[in-house]
Amino acid sequence: MKINTDHISALNKKQEDSYSSELDFLRNKFSKKGITLDEIVQKVADFQVAIPSWALGAGGTRFGRFSYGGEPASLEQKLDDIGVLHALTKSAGAVSLHIPWDIPGDVKAIKDVAKDHGITFDAMNSNTFQDQPDAKETYKFGSLSSADEAAREYAIQHNKDVINIGKELGSKSLTVWLADGANFPGQNNFQTALINTEKSLKSIYETMPEDWKMFIEYKPYEPNFYSTVIQDWGTSFMLANACGERAYTLVDLGHHLPNTNIEQIVATLMLKGKLGGFHFNDSKYGDDDVTVGSIKPYALFLIFNELVYGMENNPQNPDFSWMIDASHNTKDPLEDLIQSLEAILIAYTQALLVDQKALRNAQQENDVVKCQEILQDAYRSDVRPILKAAREKSGAAVNPLQAYRNFEVRKQLIKERGTKTLATGL
Amino acid sequence: MKINTDHISALNKKQEDSYSSELDFLRNKFSKKGITLDEIVQKVADFQVAIPSWALGAGGTRFGRFSYGGEPASLEQKLDDIGVLHALTKSAGAVSLHIPWDIPGDVKAIKDVAKDHGITFDAMNSNTFQDQPDAKETYKFGSLSSADEAAREYAIQHNKDVINIGKELGSKSLTVWLADGANFPGQNNFQTALINTEKSLKSIYETMPEDWKMFIEYKPYEPNFYSTVIQDWGTSFMLANACGERAYTLVDLGHHLPNTNIEQIVATLMLKGKLGGFHFNDSKYGDDDVTVGSIKPYALFLIFNELVYGMENNPQNPDFSWMIDASHNTKDPLEDLIQSLEAILIAYTQALLVDQKALRNAQQENDVVKCQEILQDAYRSDVRPILKAAREKSGAAVNPLQAYRNFEVRKQLIKERGTKTLATGL
Amino acid sequence: MKINTDHISALNKKQEDSYSSELDFLRNKFSKKGITLDEIVQKVADFQVAIPSWALGAGGTRFGRFSYGGEPASLEQKLDDIGVLHALTKSAGAVSLHIPWDIPGDVKAIKDVAKDHGITFDAMNSNTFQDQPDAKETYKFGSLSSADEAAREYAIQHNKDVINIGKELGSKSLTVWLADGANFPGQNNFQTALINTEKSLKSIYETMPEDWKMFIEYKPYEPNFYSTVIQDWGTSFMLANACGERAYTLVDLGHHLPNTNIEQIVATLMLKGKLGGFHFNDSKYGDDDVTVGSIKPYALFLIFNELVYGMENNPQNPDFSWMIDASHNTKDPLEDLIQSLEAILIAYTQALLVDQKALRNAQQENDVVKCQEILQDAYRSDVRPILKAAREKSGAAVNPLQAYRNFEVRKQLIKERGTKTLATGL
Amino acid sequence: MKINTDHISALNKKQEDSYSSELDFLRNKFSKKGITLDEIVQKVADFQVAIPSWALGAGGTRFGRFSYGGEPASLEQKLDDIGVLHALTKSAGAVSLHIPWDIPGDVKAIKDVAKDHGITFDAMNSNTFQDQPDAKETYKFGSLSSADEAAREYAIQHNKDVINIGKELGSKSLTVWLADGANFPGQNNFQTALINTEKSLKSIYETMPEDWKMFIEYKPYEPNFYSTVIQDWGTSFMLANACGERAYTLVDLGHHLPNTNIEQIVATLMLKGKLGGFHFNDSKYGDDDVTVGSIKPYALFLIFNELVYGMENNPQNPDFSWMIDASHNTKDPLEDLIQSLEAILIAYTQALLVDQKALRNAQQENDVVKCQEILQDAYRSDVRPILKAAREKSGAAVNPLQAYRNFEVRKQLIKERGTKTLATGL
Repeated sequence: MKINTDHISALNKKQEDSYSSELDFLRNKFSKKGITLDEIVQKVADFQVAIPSWALGAGGTRFGRFSYGGEPASLEQKLDDIGVLHALTKSAGAVSLHIPWDIPGDVKAIKDVAKDHGITFDAMNSNTFQDQPDAKETYKFGSLSSADEAAREYAIQHNKDVINIGKELGSKSLTVWLADGANFPGQNNFQTALINTEKSLKSIYETMPEDWKMFIEYKPYEPNFYSTVIQDWGTSFMLANACGERAYTLVDLGHHLPNTNIEQIVATLMLKGKLGGFHFNDSKYGDDDVTVGSIKPYALFLIFNELVYGMENNPQNPDFSWMIDASHNTKDPLEDLIQSLEAILIAYTQALLVDQKALRNAQQENDVVKCQEILQDAYRSDVRPILKAAREKSGAAVNPLQAYRNFEVRKQLIKERGTKTLATGL
Repeated sequence: MKINTDHISALNKKQEDSYSSELDFLRNKFSKKGITLDEIVQKVADFQVAIPSWALGAGGTRFGRFSYGGEPASLEQKLDDIGVLHALTKSAGAVSLHIPWDIPGDVKAIKDVAKDHGITFDAMNSNTFQDQPDAKETYKFGSLSSADEAAREYAIQHNKDVINIGKELGSKSLTVWLADGANFPGQNNFQTALINTEKSLKSIYETMPEDWKMFIEYKPYEPNFYSTVIQDWGTSFMLANACGERAYTLVDLGHHLPNTNIEQIVATLMLKGKLGGFHFNDSKYGDDDVTVGSIKPYALFLIFNELVYGMENNPQNPDFSWMIDASHNTKDPLEDLIQSLEAILIAYTQALLVDQKALRNAQQENDVVKCQEILQDAYRSDVRPILKAAREKSGAAVNPLQAYRNFEVRKQLIKERGTKTLATGL
Repeated sequence: MKINTDHISALNKKQEDSYSSELDFLRNKFSKKGITLDEIVQKVADFQVAIPSWALGAGGTRFGRFSYGGEPASLEQKLDDIGVLHALTKSAGAVSLHIPWDIPGDVKAIKDVAKDHGITFDAMNSNTFQDQPDAKETYKFGSLSSADEAAREYAIQHNKDVINIGKELGSKSLTVWLADGANFPGQNNFQTALINTEKSLKSIYETMPEDWKMFIEYKPYEPNFYSTVIQDWGTSFMLANACGERAYTLVDLGHHLPNTNIEQIVATLMLKGKLGGFHFNDSKYGDDDVTVGSIKPYALFLIFNELVYGMENNPQNPDFSWMIDASHNTKDPLEDLIQSLEAILIAYTQALLVDQKALRNAQQENDVVKCQEILQDAYRSDVRPILKAAREKSGAAVNPLQAYRNFEVRKQLIKERGTKTLATGL
Repeated sequence: MKINTDHISALNKKQEDSYSSELDFLRNKFSKKGITLDEIVQKVADFQVAIPSWALGAGGTRFGRFSYGGEPASLEQKLDDIGVLHALTKSAGAVSLHIPWDIPGDVKAIKDVAKDHGITFDAMNSNTFQDQPDAKETYKFGSLSSADEAAREYAIQHNKDVINIGKELGSKSLTVWLADGANFPGQNNFQTALINTEKSLKSIYETMPEDWKMFIEYKPYEPNFYSTVIQDWGTSFMLANACGERAYTLVDLGHHLPNTNIEQIVATLMLKGKLGGFHFNDSKYGDDDVTVGSIKPYALFLIFNELVYGMENNPQNPDFSWMIDASHNTKDPLEDLIQSLEAILIAYTQALLVDQKALRNAQQENDVVKCQEILQDAYRSDVRPILKAAREKSGAAVNPLQAYRNFEVRKQLIKERGTKTLATGL
């Protein structure tokens, strides 16, 4: 299915919900601080987040999975779903593919579908945490870090294959999430595993085209429950430095120990020019992968505060690859993504409203109370009118969730695809 | 397959590993403290832990599963596997069944198989966290706590069915693990969910035979990631009190927030006569379900210290249902269970060696240093000779893991069952 | 010093900051949902939080303390400081005293000072976690739970003395925070400590006047680092039930293990009619005691959402004793308290804006997405205009922090009291 | 006071506690694995841990402090206390001083006292987390990272002064624990703070003598509760690399977020040749600073397993500075230190007993079960006979704690120094 843009404008026009007076209020308030609202509206309109191909189906836990009707059964259908999202929000204009789940049969056809939806190909994702039915080597005891050379080579080759597929599609980066680790003390030798990983990553890095980047994810635990080879940003950063200039650390919000100060990690990496990618989700306990902003919206704002600061002040750091990486266990995946996009844009907008000059002065004067006031003033503002203005400007639905329900998208998808489909992937 | 007891005694005889001098050393050392080693050997020989039927196959995570050869494909085969375990250790003489995975086709036949292996039927486990293919109601949004009366009734009936199956087999208890909860703030009304749960549990409780017990598990998160209806021991305890005298709290070691003092919970529940069941496993991060004693053996000892204390001093508390509840993602499940049994018996034995009288005196005198010394003296002792003596006494293999490998059990199972079997269950 | 109310109204008039158009916007928006803004303004104006007497001086850590100028050196001066707070905010109309730090010399004089500031006497706090210079018994190894009867009796008597002082002043409740516990495994017997604590609390409870309440705090760790006698709400709840109808659990936001779902605890306690008191602060790691709402404002909102629900639906639960219990290590204590009050009122107001009827419907329909939308719609609203209206209505400063700085209160206090004063207390 | 070595040998002789048969058992058992026990006895006898000068008095929490009789009131008395420890254990032959608490009046006299006790001067510790009475600048808002240049220079100069004092005494290293950070979001600029810190550390590094090392500690929180400038090993490692070859990371066991895999950090740092120092203590919740090995002895063993591996296989890493950094809130500080030394030596010995060759093979074969068996076999051994043999060999008391009590050391110290002394320091 495809959303008709006329329907969106019609719906936008019908909006009883007028936000212009609110927008004026915000414009006045922040203009006094030297912040031009129209520039912010434009920035918000420009902001794009990639959708991973595996996020269009229902997620599950190790205790099982409750399926959802109308799930996409092919890469084309996944792109169609992102097309719906992008039409409604104009901020989901990219897809992040996962190999082997998304190997395109007909590359040209897939590129056409994507182009038709206005979707570009963001980072490619390799998979060395599962054995495919026809696999010649097993990843049960590790892949890029494995003590077994054959398994390592097999995993390296897989990553190279992923790069090749990505090259054909027009992607420019590879994300490596290494699930390798150990379930028990003694199971592997930490130093050997790290040395092997560095060698494997270098080998992959060397075959990347010159205009590609490599993103190295870190995660403290799961699916291994004693140790993971790349357990924290420090390890990822070290590996990225070892690989070369175009290797970067990727931060996934859920991949941290309890109480980690993530915004400080973000600031440090940008200072060093090594923050390459960003995976959005939210969590209360571990890598819960719930909707962005549904649990700790203030933490999300603080992270965006550092991101915005870095984008302004750290030319040494490249543009980011942004992606939503959540799991939709009990919600309609598309609705969940709409809520995630909303939360991301709200946090981004609030961060753009921070009075950086006043903040710098208050920091210099050690006026702790005022520093807090400045951040909270931006955060406590209701910025939804800015999002609406940005969306109206870019031809998106002013209220995407409302539009999604109004257009009965899920009903339509179920009609087209049935209730028992199962998205490829997890 | 079945282990020949002659082979075990033959192997025991061949043991170069003589432990008698070590045992004498321990006997002398502890007799000075008024602790009779032979009594402890007997207690260790008597100790029995139930094996859950789902623990005989390889486990997995939400990221997939690496299967293991020779997994049991039927309830009979599961009982056979426990039979192997019990023959080797003489401490795994019970099984805990899970419905609907283990519905017996021929009750009498199953009872005969169990009897033949010397296995009794411990607590029955219901499953309201997954929808079965033919389910008339869904548990996607809850079962015993559901806002939907039909789903509640369906879940209540399922638990009653489980009791009926258990009655036929000779089980005397029902374990309720309620996965109900919410992934997002606002998703359910905490009070309504709790009220519904209490009502549902009471309804199940009332149909239990008079010689049955009900065990109510608690867990702070997973598979729900914002809240669970029975999030902690306080909630379980409240519900058990509401149900009646034969309802108890069940403690699963992995079901706690980081840093929880579990041994204190154990002590409190025993004081109140409400600790009914115990699920053993270990974890570093969450409900990791790794081999018992593989991560925090001292914590396990401290818990056993309270259990032993309670067994001596709390007649108000009933005998426990002990069970291993671990997941074997990268190990041979049977080897993993042997390692878990070993860790449990070590901790139990060490706890039995605590000089309770001296400890009481040191506590009364606030001699904190001495209190610590007393516990550590027991813990630092190498108690493996006691386990060996207990096993020899009861006809088990002195070194069960060695015997398991010696007898090439897994090779045998693969020969019998093939490499591609998949245990029913998770 | 005392704030002149004329100065406040003068300042309010001068406010360029006009909030009436914003208020109208909110009025319109929420009236469509059947929520009357004026009622909410009134509720916010009525809301009162107690200030503990120890919160007027600079706090510290075990690594030392950086003092602040103009700290109050006597109970009178502490009341004066709260008087300033209350004049500026009209929401700090109560004090919570700590004995022995605040033993009044002249009871009548103290009551007059309080009355003059419009301050009432909220819960009394006892202290059995420190030895006073003239102490006859030590609390080093516990107080109400001590293995030593003399120490127990001494601590019981102290609590009775606190009640007597409170009776003279007009307080109606006693808060017991029991720091008792152990630094090492084995140090105390969990069951004995719990039995002793129950006995001690009952003895104190029995001497309370009939119109008094007892609040029993819980805390998992600190100042003891292995265990605390009242480690969680379950233990507190059990003790409160044992004491009697007028004994309640008190929730301090910082007294929980990482990731605890506090709002669910709140809901459970209110359902059972046992939530008596509430201590506000915020934290990222442990009992950090930082400014309310400075780290996890959404969690604060979710807690208030349950509190508001309970106030509407749980007649079985009494009115709360609200108190701010934070530590001001690097901020002016009065400014910190103003920021805490602001955060509390914002969360309370947002909770009042939740469309409860729509939420109930969405919950009943398992519309998880909508449930989240309803909570987030309230939370994302900028409710500061409502706070301003409420303050203007009650004669407080529209912008209390701005007024505090405008009136140069701290400068004044330093002039009066000097820079080297040290508040009694921690 | 000073322990008479004759008394120690007399006591050793009287020992009923004969450990030789146990030792023989261990010798036989491990010789089969190619491990020579006498070499291990020698290594254990050689192992030395520094005692920090502040650890001889009672510790406290922010809620107060219970003092202990006979605490040392001067640097000489602190050295005397370590002298007692060293005489009893022969493994505490070094002191780590803290400036300004331990500025020596007469350097030569102090060196003589130390020499007399057989104590060398390990790492010097600077203090920029407290303001001294005569301080010209405040560290309230930071020291080496401060936004205020004058505060930074003041802190740099203090560190240089500490180096100069250390040079006179014969120390060869400086430990920098930077308490700098923020209590609230926005309070400081992460990037500026990090840049300032790097500059300050470089300036200190450059004035260090060529045979000195610098140890950079990290800590996630406390005394700042939102962020710390050097929050993790990654940040410390980055700063050490920026400073130069002789700058290293220092690991304090208590300075980690919940569930951190510390042993992996240790392995990584040694691989990179950057692990310089080690602070021992134990904890259940945060930086609890309780007795080493009293909470998580298996984790301590796993860490030592990596340390021993690194000492054998990582020539790129220097010898360590080992130190006990615990707080003694409810125990006699000297007894607490004896217990900590015991736990350290036990873990070290167990790690020395790991069959490294068999482990390597099992890892190469992915025999996860066997890997675990190998580690657990070493850990479950009762190695106390080895400690006794090592102590007897080096002239220490076979049972140091027993000897300490036998000699009534504390009684003696109280007689000499009184009950109301207060150790300088925290």
